[in-house]
Amino acid sequence: MPDHAPPAGKVVPVTRILAEYAAAASPETLPAPVRKEAARTFLNWLGCAIGGCRHEAVDAAIAALSPFAGPGRSVVAGRTERLDPLNASLINGISSHVFDFDDTHLRTVIHPAGPVASALLAYAGVQPISGRDFVNALVVGIEAECRIGNAVYPEHYDVGWHITGSVGAFGAAAAIGRILGLDGERMAWALGIAASQPVGLREMFGSMTKSFHPGRAAQNGMTAALLAAKGYTSSPQALEAKRGWMNVLSTRHDAREITEGLGSQFEILANTYKPFACGIVMHPVIDACIQLREEHGVDAGSVRSVALRVHPLVLELTGKTAPQSGLEGKFSIYHAAAVALTEGDGGEEQFSDRAVNDPAIVALRGRVNATVDTAMPADAAQVVLTRTDGTTTEIRIDHAIGSLARPMSDRDLERKFTGLAAPHLDDDAIRRLIDLCWRLEALDDVSLIAEASTR
Amino acid sequence: MPDHAPPAGKVVPVTRILAEYAAAASPETLPAPVRKEAARTFLNWLGCAIGGCRHEAVDAAIAALSPFAGPGRSVVAGRTERLDPLNASLINGISSHVFDFDDTHLRTVIHPAGPVASALLAYAGVQPISGRDFVNALVVGIEAECRIGNAVYPEHYDVGWHITGSVGAFGAAAAIGRILGLDGERMAWALGIAASQPVGLREMFGSMTKSFHPGRAAQNGMTAALLAAKGYTSSPQALEAKRGWMNVLSTRHDAREITEGLGSQFEILANTYKPFACGIVMHPVIDACIQLREEHGVDAGSVRSVALRVHPLVLELTGKTAPQSGLEGKFSIYHAAAVALTEGDGGEEQFSDRAVNDPAIVALRGRVNATVDTAMPADAAQVVLTRTDGTTTEIRIDHAIGSLARPMSDRDLERKFTGLAAPHLDDDAIRRLIDLCWRLEALDDVSLIAEASTR
Repeated sequence: MPDHAPPAGKVVPVTRILAEYAAAASPETLPAPVRKEAARTFLNWLGCAIGGCRHEAVDAAIAALSPFAGPGRSVVAGRTERLDPLNASLINGISSHVFDFDDTHLRTVIHPAGPVASALLAYAGVQPISGRDFVNALVVGIEAECRIGNAVYPEHYDVGWHITGSVGAFGAAAAIGRILGLDGERMAWALGIAASQPVGLREMFGSMTKSFHPGRAAQNGMTAALLAAKGYTSSPQALEAKRGWMNVLSTRHDAREITEGLGSQFEILANTYKPFACGIVMHPVIDACIQLREEHGVDAGSVRSVALRVHPLVLELTGKTAPQSGLEGKFSIYHAAAVALTEGDGGEEQFSDRAVNDPAIVALRGRVNATVDTAMPADAAQVVLTRTDGTTTEIRIDHAIGSLARPMSDRDLERKFTGLAAPHLDDDAIRRLIDLCWRLEALDDVSLIAEASTR
Repeated sequence: MPDHAPPAGKVVPVTRILAEYAAAASPETLPAPVRKEAARTFLNWLGCAIGGCRHEAVDAAIAALSPFAGPGRSVVAGRTERLDPLNASLINGISSHVFDFDDTHLRTVIHPAGPVASALLAYAGVQPISGRDFVNALVVGIEAECRIGNAVYPEHYDVGWHITGSVGAFGAAAAIGRILGLDGERMAWALGIAASQPVGLREMFGSMTKSFHPGRAAQNGMTAALLAAKGYTSSPQALEAKRGWMNVLSTRHDAREITEGLGSQFEILANTYKPFACGIVMHPVIDACIQLREEHGVDAGSVRSVALRVHPLVLELTGKTAPQSGLEGKFSIYHAAAVALTEGDGGEEQFSDRAVNDPAIVALRGRVNATVDTAMPADAAQVVLTRTDGTTTEIRIDHAIGSLARPMSDRDLERKFTGLAAPHLDDDAIRRLIDLCWRLEALDDVSLIAEASTR
């Protein structure tokens, strides 16, 4: 790899450094664990995209936009429609995020695959992409978005940006730019065009527009790369300039996060996969409630109260006390605890309209209290259950399942994929897709996976 | 009109109030001066879109995106291609802004027509739109974007947002939403989806990405309206919420600007049209230099120095001392003064690569100095020319031509349109288009204008 250490000087040209890296990144130099994690990331993403493919948000987006879509060579995972790659990026990005079940870069709460894999799979419908190039571009895209995220987190998120959407276009631009073979100058333009179209306000959480964010980021990044490839110019210092992305969209940044270790340390190794179909901040509580139920049994009728001690973000993000729909349930830690204690799981079924309006779960939810503990790590939680007879049971989770310290195994990921895909594809197709994902790097043409993911 | 006065309460639901206005706005109630200004706005916009249609930025964007565009019923002004309405919005928005010659809402430096008219003309390729409905939707869209701009200017602009792109999607969403007949709830969703995809960093000024901003805003707003029409949900308080658009994208806002006088006072009446093909902040200096040349004659060889006294924004936005291209020349007040003194004009020809690299103009540019005067109004400037023999001539412009105090006449607008369109359409076509624009309101189907604007 070339040396990406920044030259001396006051403002480091990080846009150009990142662009040069993305333009030159080669599959030859990727360490084996990185390639392995890329396959895990892609398998997890594809399962989510197939799982969400019949959600009403996806139906609405296809109904709205397909009349205007271009020649249909790119697949919509799990469905029969073919769309142009820009629209396919958007739709696959929506479906992969609509269950809040996709991957998480814990340090920044970015969902890395959505913007990048959605764009890449769609572009595989336009030109043949080998598995090696696909993996390389996936890694490059995730580096770009997560490193930019690292540079501005948490302030950028605190301002109110849904970081997956606001950094996602960088990831898609870098990944598609790599596939298009952009040189450093055009790659910098692609990043610049991406910088000018951030997507996603946190205010949208709880509405369909949340899942629009990674999809639109994928589409915006692909648009940026396509434009740059044809000579559409942009600022070559879009990130670091006085009125560049980092200054405009964050109150603080550390640009060294973008350049240090670039090409030798990989953010994809910090990617995690959710066992539960909701925001990562809820996972420790759900894990605790499931373990509590499995180890001690829980009779909802005899529960007087459930006391949660949680990381501050839990109440900031998921403090809805009276969710009305499955989607709103994903933003209610009270519902999450109640349904996990009742049903012993946290899958999409536990965040359905049915579950959120189940009278027994609604009643139990009303007896759940939550307290913020600023000393509580993000992947930890404590739950104390008090019964009507006064007895209590307490459980503390130090690292929720799915965290970096307790990662999902390959077998766990296959099970999750199967559960998500089962309503949409038959067993043989699911088995074949899982096999293809594990062999991703060896494929001559990734469109094999794209084709196998449709009905 | 319904009463749009906000109810009492701490946070006024301005998104919903604006949505209800946009959903209910009727052509019946538009005052005559508003309808007249809509025709002037549209004529000026169409001339700019035709004028820019062969710019290399437009060529690059069409080359990049047309392979993926959908069924081609929407025109690209001045050209032969047909595209789907989303891509046509983008391309027309780029071409209408690429000369920096489009309209200006002076209070906010928003270019109102770009995002709104680009979307509307493109949508006229999808369904018949009467002139009355077109004018009504144009007014509604401009109200939405300019009122939101008023609420956050200048802080939002100071943060670094290119306000035309960042508020433009609201305008396009409201306009297309009105054409689609969205009810108040869906119109609010459309505004919400628009809020989540602001476009445009000021860092992009001087590159092709600047003109991408109004085009992408048009496309984003149309996308938002199309999605909302099919039930794609969003936050109904996207503007005013704690993590809504105003709080996230500005350091201050006054939401009363959005609601006060809504439906009875019209921002389109404050729209202005540029006599010169560059940023509005340069116009007083160019006006002064042209008058100085006309009244006193200027022999560049005998000029020792040219001293400009200008509003602070002039040097902040157009302080480039050594522009290399026509586009960069639009961000150099030094070039603008030199070329206006030399050639007596400030048209696209004066901001060409030829003019910027003309040795005599380059030499004169090196003798231009500029001083900020914080007491100088935005539409004023002073120029003092000192000759090698020591004599000086001074001129002060209180209101530049094209400002609200000295508006372009209908005849001026026709002349400007003709100059812009002449390289692309024949005289008969230009005459016919001007006539159609003045009769805009009376047309049964605005696609007549769309068709007449193509080669």
